[in-house]
Amino acid sequence: MISVGIVGGTGYTGVELLRLLLRHPNVTVRVLTSRTEAGKRVCDMFPSLRGHTDLTFSDLDTDVLKSCDVVFFATPHGVAMKYAQALVDANTKVIDLAADFRLQNLEEFEKWYGMAHECPELLKSSIYGLSELNREKIKNAQVIGNPGCYPTTVQLGLAPLLKTKNLIETKSIIVDAKSGVSGAGRKASMGMIYTENADSFKAYSVSGHRHQPEIIEALENISGQKKAFDHLVFVPHLVPMIRGMLSTIYVDLTQEGDDLDIQAFYEAFYKNELFVDVMPQGSLPETRSVRGANELRIALYKPQPKKLVIVVIQDNLVKGAAGQAVQNMNLMCGLAEETGLTGIALSP
Amino acid sequence: MISVGIVGGTGYTGVELLRLLLRHPNVTVRVLTSRTEAGKRVCDMFPSLRGHTDLTFSDLDTDVLKSCDVVFFATPHGVAMKYAQALVDANTKVIDLAADFRLQNLEEFEKWYGMAHECPELLKSSIYGLSELNREKIKNAQVIGNPGCYPTTVQLGLAPLLKTKNLIETKSIIVDAKSGVSGAGRKASMGMIYTENADSFKAYSVSGHRHQPEIIEALENISGQKKAFDHLVFVPHLVPMIRGMLSTIYVDLTQEGDDLDIQAFYEAFYKNELFVDVMPQGSLPETRSVRGANELRIALYKPQPKKLVIVVIQDNLVKGAAGQAVQNMNLMCGLAEETGLTGIALSP
Amino acid sequence: MISVGIVGGTGYTGVELLRLLLRHPNVTVRVLTSRTEAGKRVCDMFPSLRGHTDLTFSDLDTDVLKSCDVVFFATPHGVAMKYAQALVDANTKVIDLAADFRLQNLEEFEKWYGMAHECPELLKSSIYGLSELNREKIKNAQVIGNPGCYPTTVQLGLAPLLKTKNLIETKSIIVDAKSGVSGAGRKASMGMIYTENADSFKAYSVSGHRHQPEIIEALENISGQKKAFDHLVFVPHLVPMIRGMLSTIYVDLTQEGDDLDIQAFYEAFYKNELFVDVMPQGSLPETRSVRGANELRIALYKPQPKKLVIVVIQDNLVKGAAGQAVQNMNLMCGLAEETGLTGIALSP
Amino acid sequence: MISVGIVGGTGYTGVELLRLLLRHPNVTVRVLTSRTEAGKRVCDMFPSLRGHTDLTFSDLDTDVLKSCDVVFFATPHGVAMKYAQALVDANTKVIDLAADFRLQNLEEFEKWYGMAHECPELLKSSIYGLSELNREKIKNAQVIGNPGCYPTTVQLGLAPLLKTKNLIETKSIIVDAKSGVSGAGRKASMGMIYTENADSFKAYSVSGHRHQPEIIEALENISGQKKAFDHLVFVPHLVPMIRGMLSTIYVDLTQEGDDLDIQAFYEAFYKNELFVDVMPQGSLPETRSVRGANELRIALYKPQPKKLVIVVIQDNLVKGAAGQAVQNMNLMCGLAEETGLTGIALSP
Repeated sequence: MISVGIVGGTGYTGVELLRLLLRHPNVTVRVLTSRTEAGKRVCDMFPSLRGHTDLTFSDLDTDVLKSCDVVFFATPHGVAMKYAQALVDANTKVIDLAADFRLQNLEEFEKWYGMAHECPELLKSSIYGLSELNREKIKNAQVIGNPGCYPTTVQLGLAPLLKTKNLIETKSIIVDAKSGVSGAGRKASMGMIYTENADSFKAYSVSGHRHQPEIIEALENISGQKKAFDHLVFVPHLVPMIRGMLSTIYVDLTQEGDDLDIQAFYEAFYKNELFVDVMPQGSLPETRSVRGANELRIALYKPQPKKLVIVVIQDNLVKGAAGQAVQNMNLMCGLAEETGLTGIALSP
Repeated sequence: MISVGIVGGTGYTGVELLRLLLRHPNVTVRVLTSRTEAGKRVCDMFPSLRGHTDLTFSDLDTDVLKSCDVVFFATPHGVAMKYAQALVDANTKVIDLAADFRLQNLEEFEKWYGMAHECPELLKSSIYGLSELNREKIKNAQVIGNPGCYPTTVQLGLAPLLKTKNLIETKSIIVDAKSGVSGAGRKASMGMIYTENADSFKAYSVSGHRHQPEIIEALENISGQKKAFDHLVFVPHLVPMIRGMLSTIYVDLTQEGDDLDIQAFYEAFYKNELFVDVMPQGSLPETRSVRGANELRIALYKPQPKKLVIVVIQDNLVKGAAGQAVQNMNLMCGLAEETGLTGIALSP
Repeated sequence: MISVGIVGGTGYTGVELLRLLLRHPNVTVRVLTSRTEAGKRVCDMFPSLRGHTDLTFSDLDTDVLKSCDVVFFATPHGVAMKYAQALVDANTKVIDLAADFRLQNLEEFEKWYGMAHECPELLKSSIYGLSELNREKIKNAQVIGNPGCYPTTVQLGLAPLLKTKNLIETKSIIVDAKSGVSGAGRKASMGMIYTENADSFKAYSVSGHRHQPEIIEALENISGQKKAFDHLVFVPHLVPMIRGMLSTIYVDLTQEGDDLDIQAFYEAFYKNELFVDVMPQGSLPETRSVRGANELRIALYKPQPKKLVIVVIQDNLVKGAAGQAVQNMNLMCGLAEETGLTGIALSP
Repeated sequence: MISVGIVGGTGYTGVELLRLLLRHPNVTVRVLTSRTEAGKRVCDMFPSLRGHTDLTFSDLDTDVLKSCDVVFFATPHGVAMKYAQALVDANTKVIDLAADFRLQNLEEFEKWYGMAHECPELLKSSIYGLSELNREKIKNAQVIGNPGCYPTTVQLGLAPLLKTKNLIETKSIIVDAKSGVSGAGRKASMGMIYTENADSFKAYSVSGHRHQPEIIEALENISGQKKAFDHLVFVPHLVPMIRGMLSTIYVDLTQEGDDLDIQAFYEAFYKNELFVDVMPQGSLPETRSVRGANELRIALYKPQPKKLVIVVIQDNLVKGAAGQAVQNMNLMCGLAEETGLTGIALSP
């Protein structure tokens, strides 16, 4: 059994990790830390776990974490980078669900997250955990930066077009993204209360969102084209729903791209992927079709010549966070990639 | 492997059965029928099942059903009773999720469901499938009437008080019940559309609901007291949410009942039950804590001397329908009762 | 024009008052105070008011308040009682939307609100502002304690039965109440965030809610029967919707009560009331039918002999708070009671 | 008083018209027709209107309609064109809330609405009722085609840029639009039921939506540039909320456009408009800020050089339908444009 620790177990990604790991056949969750709730029984805070675990939140104890095979950080940004080196030295694998190991560009990290990076050396050898695109590197990684939710949809939505040269006008990409409220985490702030969000819709962070530099760096890496995506436009919106994310991606095709059978091209690209579903032509993906499941679905449309519209959906807490983290753990530990991740979406 | 057929696979209980059975380690779903959708791929209608099944809806073929070990009817009332005898004769077990085998009283059945019963003989030998209360009989049953969702909450909420004589004033019971909209099924009617239900709350069927005679008959059976519950008041309400059911049950305690440590009494009664959770004193159960899980939680309060308030929650589609049906199948087939039913609730 | 001040303008009752008063033909809102937002434009905080007001939040200045004809307190409990005497001395009318002037029983006030009352003398001469039941006293009042939202539904739901002796068993009353989330106010707390409330349902404060002593005192006053309602059971629930309140009231009728034509009795009792609607027999009131309107609707059912079920709905922020406050202001200022309150509910 | 008839009073635009017109100081609603509900009291179908009207649905009687000053058609497409000529001949003004008088291009009408136009002559003299842009023509119109909800947001969002030449690349326009479910009307279809829409999000009609030709024709008229907008991309999405519409419009600025102070330019363009609000720089418009109000708000962002993002919100049933229709009626009847339309949005 793989012995697992979770640092920061009181947020939504933490409890979602727990939901998945408690049913994972090869995992024992050994420790779950919380600064604020140490000593409290986990199922007293999350009654959905009653009957499924006797865990108690504990203070962060580095020695205990070192004794785990894998440690997940479901913490705010800036925590994992304080502990990662010690864990790696103890041969413990680290998967950070925050941003500490997502951006190789230290300036961008500092600009968007407002802090200096504390272990830039380790960052260099860390692997960006978009499982489908970095699979081989992930298998041998010691430290994983688990991708942001929006970037996951954009990368998997565009990867087929970027892996072949000259299919799209890279300057044309517009991402109009929509997320359920759980994407903002479990925080007591006025802007997040029920009555401020229900039965309403809005855009947010239009003048700049932290996921934008991550998207740009990732697309550069996928395509091998530096500076090609600096003009990307990314506008996130907030949907009055709990879970779910849908990105509508607009891109101009080159003549070469327009001549392709895009549908067949995507289907071929992802034909061996268990968690990426290229839906049949004409499909209209609904976020509820992946609620609770580690799945991402893609649909493709050409409403105008040379214009491609790519719709991508996922559950932001699963394929966009905890599920992908488990997928990465499976890869790192030599397990079948789908182990513990075959749950079917809850719909309705 | 147990070979299973599902009759009526296009409603919410049908697709929920499928979600559970496709992940059940001992089951193969062999056939799924639909009058209206025969020939259509199941996952074209329910995209949440894409990648999880290649089943196609088929016409109802009695011979195919007879070749199954177990057949579930997730149909409207009045269908199962047309086929049950033939299936029983072929040694196929029948679990009806509609009302055909819930009420022993034929007059009540005809009054509330507007049809004569077509196989009263089989009804007599059928078993009411409230798993926790009728476990031994279910193990040997050929035909199960799977309980209604509301009746499940009321029976499990009151059973401890009824199994011992003279703890409550049986005439005092008031059930103020609340259900998510999926309880009404998957039907295209004006009263069910989004804009008629969102951000609003109402009572319905106040002058009489089909589950009332079922509740009364069941409480009579649990307590062994005929005619003791005719004055039961049952008022259902509709909550603007998808899944979830909460019943608030008000009951007058006798002096004997009032002297009991009710909390300890309930905990003892259900201490071996995997799917019934008596929550600690002071708990406030939320329906989301059982979303998608085959669990029912109970909390107890005494706001006034001799007054007991029992709050019971479940997911109406799981413990209130498809989950309990699978629980019954497990019992009938000699499997561990929890097989395929250990999924953790999706929360948030 | 009536010159109005609002103390505490950043909560939901404050902004709702503003919505009503900015369209009131006889009112000028002169000042709106906020401890935390002084200097900020009101419509920067509440964009729904853009184009409708140029008001800026200001610090609380007693002299400015004294210069108003009427001052509303849309503040937390304990604020109005600090300023009311000074305002009354300046001949300014006071309407408190919090609890400072609701309970005559000082012990109960201290027990439930955790503070000593600071102006018990003024409390004695203040009037409980349930407009329909205390109309004449309100006309001459200097200080109004505006009723709680739940107590409004219970009083108007039961008043006809209490004004005549011996119609009901006073010990039998059970109030199963349901409220939208705005009833909890505009507060940044974890329990109130979107993702903790959406698509879920729960009971709360089962072991005791502040509105219970208010309900009991009010029912005593309506009926003239002291100590008759101490056994009242009141269980509030939280509905995943923004506005709206529905109380389901269960009561045992005496033989005399049972012999009445209850429907006709209620219709007669409220026949001259503009804001109380006794719906036709068989109606199922939905909270959306009063969304945003100063209306309360009642429906009556007799599911069992001698058992009456009374369903009452209102918008908790309007008839349950700000609307009733304006209704009281109209009465106090000699205006037609419906002035500024004839808006039609927003449905759908 | 203006005597008004409403044809088709059982849909959401019909009941919203009624909500507005019953409070309009210069209007008497004389007749409300319904094919299916004739003889039924309006407030029995829409309890929110109880106490506000005694109207009864009636069969469509052309003579009664002719006796009205203004007749609104809140009917499906294809009804108004059957009656408009007769009404015009009787000097009755016609405002159609469906599409019969929106498109001058008959081929497009037939293609998208699946029917031949029955009064093309009258169509030619009819006026497209986007109040702010066609004000003078509307004042003298006999027949108004009230704009579609999406087209209203796109036209008012782009008009300032189109009225001056050479500010934008007309081929670059992308409209990513989001609507609440009421936009689909009041219809009993499976796709519209609560449980199929709540807590989920999707795109729809990606391969073509009826509002696209309307948008294109309207933009051509505003800009005076034929064929300039054929490449417009329009992708509508469905938000799990009742009312509200938000369009995110992406457009490439020319050098000339980029050099402009766009914010000031928009503010100047709309400075005299009562119902169009250009929000301050950095604002994030929420649909709830216009819930129930005849208002449209615009916010502007330049996330990249030469890239403009325009966010436009409205209540699809008010400024996007019934409110704009009343605004047009006011213009046609010589009333102040805001008469009966000054209600403040219901928020929260």
